[in-house]
Amino acid sequence: MILTVTLNAALDVTYGVDSLLPRTSHRVDSTYERAGGKGINVARVLAARGHPVAVTGLAGGPTGTVLRDELRTAGLRDELLPIAGDSRRTLTVVSHDDGDATVFNETGPQVEPAEWESFTAHFASLLRGVAVVVLSGSLPPGLPPDAYATLVRTAGAAGAATVVDTSGPALLDALGAGPDVVKPNAAELTAVTGREDVAAAAAELRVLGARAVVASSGADGLHAVTGAGTWRAVPPEQLAGNPTGAGDACVAALAAGLAAGAPWPEVLREAVALSAAAVPCPMAGDIDPGTYHRFRTTVSVEELHAPLAH
Amino acid sequence: MILTVTLNAALDVTYGVDSLLPRTSHRVDSTYERAGGKGINVARVLAARGHPVAVTGLAGGPTGTVLRDELRTAGLRDELLPIAGDSRRTLTVVSHDDGDATVFNETGPQVEPAEWESFTAHFASLLRGVAVVVLSGSLPPGLPPDAYATLVRTAGAAGAATVVDTSGPALLDALGAGPDVVKPNAAELTAVTGREDVAAAAAELRVLGARAVVASSGADGLHAVTGAGTWRAVPPEQLAGNPTGAGDACVAALAAGLAAGAPWPEVLREAVALSAAAVPCPMAGDIDPGTYHRFRTTVSVEELHAPLAH
Repeated sequence: MILTVTLNAALDVTYGVDSLLPRTSHRVDSTYERAGGKGINVARVLAARGHPVAVTGLAGGPTGTVLRDELRTAGLRDELLPIAGDSRRTLTVVSHDDGDATVFNETGPQVEPAEWESFTAHFASLLRGVAVVVLSGSLPPGLPPDAYATLVRTAGAAGAATVVDTSGPALLDALGAGPDVVKPNAAELTAVTGREDVAAAAAELRVLGARAVVASSGADGLHAVTGAGTWRAVPPEQLAGNPTGAGDACVAALAAGLAAGAPWPEVLREAVALSAAAVPCPMAGDIDPGTYHRFRTTVSVEELHAPLAH
Repeated sequence: MILTVTLNAALDVTYGVDSLLPRTSHRVDSTYERAGGKGINVARVLAARGHPVAVTGLAGGPTGTVLRDELRTAGLRDELLPIAGDSRRTLTVVSHDDGDATVFNETGPQVEPAEWESFTAHFASLLRGVAVVVLSGSLPPGLPPDAYATLVRTAGAAGAATVVDTSGPALLDALGAGPDVVKPNAAELTAVTGREDVAAAAAELRVLGARAVVASSGADGLHAVTGAGTWRAVPPEQLAGNPTGAGDACVAALAAGLAAGAPWPEVLREAVALSAAAVPCPMAGDIDPGTYHRFRTTVSVEELHAPLAH
């Protein structure tokens, strides 16, 4: 079983408008709502691929109720812990004229110390039979900066592998707890290391404690630095569409690969194919099966050099 | 007592962002929610001025629950009828860099015929002791086109005066029921009559059935065509700010004036002063007392000509 953690779960709302013009009024002609936050998107991809998965994290208030109702409708196992604050919404405004998306991300509810303490106990109680824990996204206000490090250690002690997809201080802090995989994108890597070079920055995160680093660079594919070797995996072609769900699809593939004990080249091929298959879909968490099957056999994986000393 | 009707009640949400840039992601640094829709804004202004007022209309779903909770917090008497659909939200994105507002209006829930039938009975039951009924804003999907005409007739039969503030077909249709006052703005007047000239267009609405027409033209003030004469009321100066609440403040003054049986020049002076006092406030339904008192004595009201035959 794979358990995904979304500490700042969201209700993702999509508005359709004719054309987005600042300083004017817009008639919203379509409204679409579903549960989101990166961990929930990862769970959606895993469930669609037939993997047993459960969703945990924090959700509360009227928005939390709506998002949990939607999880139930989607058939995702809901192990979210209720909190007093109202969960955040993210709003994507899509213009019909050019298909472009403009995004507004609310910060999220204030989490009380007692709620975080309850969550750590709740999380530990969910780990029986869990092979991989995915920790994705931002931390809501009020959480301690070492929140991900604490969960990585708890998961590790229970024998579960961990995949962390976050950025900034939350990412840096998690490294010290020795997560099995971290998946920053190129911008996040540069932000935490100050290095522009993806290979050098990824190697640095491994030195800081991650057992493996899989860095994503959009259409340039993945650069993986692991204890078993260093690889580059590149998609055969570039796709137009919505890249927001590609990172979550990549993480889903990494978690499924870790759970299956698959070799890295195979995991990376799957990760590039699933990432690409997210791009034609307007909503994060969705996968285009045609793209997936086409890419599955045409992703190129190249070993750059042999295992590095850790 | 004044009863305001908001058939498409909304939760008005305001997001603060640094700068609105289409096709980018924005961090929302402040989120503010309150009950809205034009009738609710009118009730807020009336309550703040000490007038006994109640709010009715239609609200439902999780958004309806949040907006009714906020009405309670604000101390407004809530006589909304619950419906199955989820009430709409309106979103105003305010940029900190220039103070400009960009607005997204959801359409509103589908109202079932049985819900509308329940509402007409509910509305009739609320009319005891009501001097003036205010009917404001758009109709949600599913309502008959003669919804406002029906309510105007019911109110009239119960001895209540009516003020209608809507646009397009809903306004045209309401005229036939003989509302006491309609308050279109210049653009709405042009849209329903095809005339650019405010005086001529306002006179035409009176011919179509309204007992009085008060047309608002922003900083140019009000043009009133009534059975007792025709007036122009002009503010002493132009104000910078948010004009969205000015129309609702104007309607509040018209309703209060009708309830008090005040003479038109006094009603119009009050309406221009309250409209102006809404402009410095970022949220519709709020009034700046300093502006109100300053304008109250300096609005110029000019009689254009003597009573017209109806």
